[in-house]
Amino acid sequence: MRQPAGRSARRSGGERKPREERWAELIEVATQVFYEKGYDGASLQDIADRLGMLKGSLYYYIQSKEDLLFDVISMVHKEGLEVVRSRASVESDPLQRLERVVAGHVEHTCRNLVAVAVFLHELSALPPERRQEVLGTEHAYQGVFRDLIEEAQREGLVRPDVEPRLAALSVLGSANWVYRWFRPGGAFTPEVIGAQLADMAVAGVATESALAARRAGIAALS
Amino acid sequence: MRQPAGRSARRSGGERKPREERWAELIEVATQVFYEKGYDGASLQDIADRLGMLKGSLYYYIQSKEDLLFDVISMVHKEGLEVVRSRASVESDPLQRLERVVAGHVEHTCRNLVAVAVFLHELSALPPERRQEVLGTEHAYQGVFRDLIEEAQREGLVRPDVEPRLAALSVLGSANWVYRWFRPGGAFTPEVIGAQLADMAVAGVATESALAARRAGIAALS
Repeated sequence: MRQPAGRSARRSGGERKPREERWAELIEVATQVFYEKGYDGASLQDIADRLGMLKGSLYYYIQSKEDLLFDVISMVHKEGLEVVRSRASVESDPLQRLERVVAGHVEHTCRNLVAVAVFLHELSALPPERRQEVLGTEHAYQGVFRDLIEEAQREGLVRPDVEPRLAALSVLGSANWVYRWFRPGGAFTPEVIGAQLADMAVAGVATESALAARRAGIAALS
Repeated sequence: MRQPAGRSARRSGGERKPREERWAELIEVATQVFYEKGYDGASLQDIADRLGMLKGSLYYYIQSKEDLLFDVISMVHKEGLEVVRSRASVESDPLQRLERVVAGHVEHTCRNLVAVAVFLHELSALPPERRQEVLGTEHAYQGVFRDLIEEAQREGLVRPDVEPRLAALSVLGSANWVYRWFRPGGAFTPEVIGAQLADMAVAGVATESALAARRAGIAALS
């Protein structure tokens, strides 16, 4: 679990673990409260009440409600970015990596539904500099998808008429949209949804020969 | 331009056109104000000010701010549904219709960016019955995509491993997400984006033989 920046001195030594747990709990509760009431409608008092803490104790962890929103938003975004970056960097052809990246992003979204919704709905509540900091990460996010599509295109695995920027946004849109319709315990698991969306994403951009090779590989495995 | 339900008696006769124009203007301004300030932050006074009207005159058209939000949301949604339904019902194979439906939906989203954003962000501000009324239409929206994919699957044009419900949501997600990144006057026109996203959607679900036939058809035309 990430620690709030610049507060590590306060959380060293023997009490380290309980404080980190408390921080994780604070983020979880804040996420839920922002989701239910919206950022404008939520107060630090609401969050403290739900944690069974005094409002004043929250200032041990954060300086303002805005800090908390920024932490909720940037944490879920950075975790997602780590998922896609780690999957993008394994040793395999760029189409296989794209498939794994899309599936990973979908699964991460399904598992962090509430935080993703807060990110997408409340980003505009952050002041410009902090929003820009998050958007820089979002740019990096898109970049992971675009770079893989460009790399695959250079290798002849993606059709030459595909525009990598639009393809990246299309694939990201398909995967991000999951936050609006996925319900835990519904008809499809995150893995099934991730696999289907990833398969459609790859098939949507691949050349005929890359697709044929891919299907032959899948057939050989089954 | 659609008229508000139940108010047709007030707008008959010689003055019909100016009143309809005024209504269209009211919807346009309300959309913009809801977008800029959020539904909670916007007041009928803001909307009246921007129209250069007295607030009291708004009650000639609507009974409450909620009426106005409902009209903004249901209008853009119904217009979009008309676009996709009309494109889904032309005489051609279901994959070609799917392509035209996706392109039409993307173009409609690009051209109604602000209203679509209000729809997606403020739907939850409507009371349950009115939200349900809109969601019924959203269900119909998804149904257009799903029905075409199912029809194409029955005809052997879509791969048997594609799950039509997930494919419909994936394609809709890719197309809906446009509202978050499209900027008028940017690098790509609505038509180019619509064509690319539609092409990827079809390629993402089609069988190899359907794709080969499709590419041969495109090659024959060019």
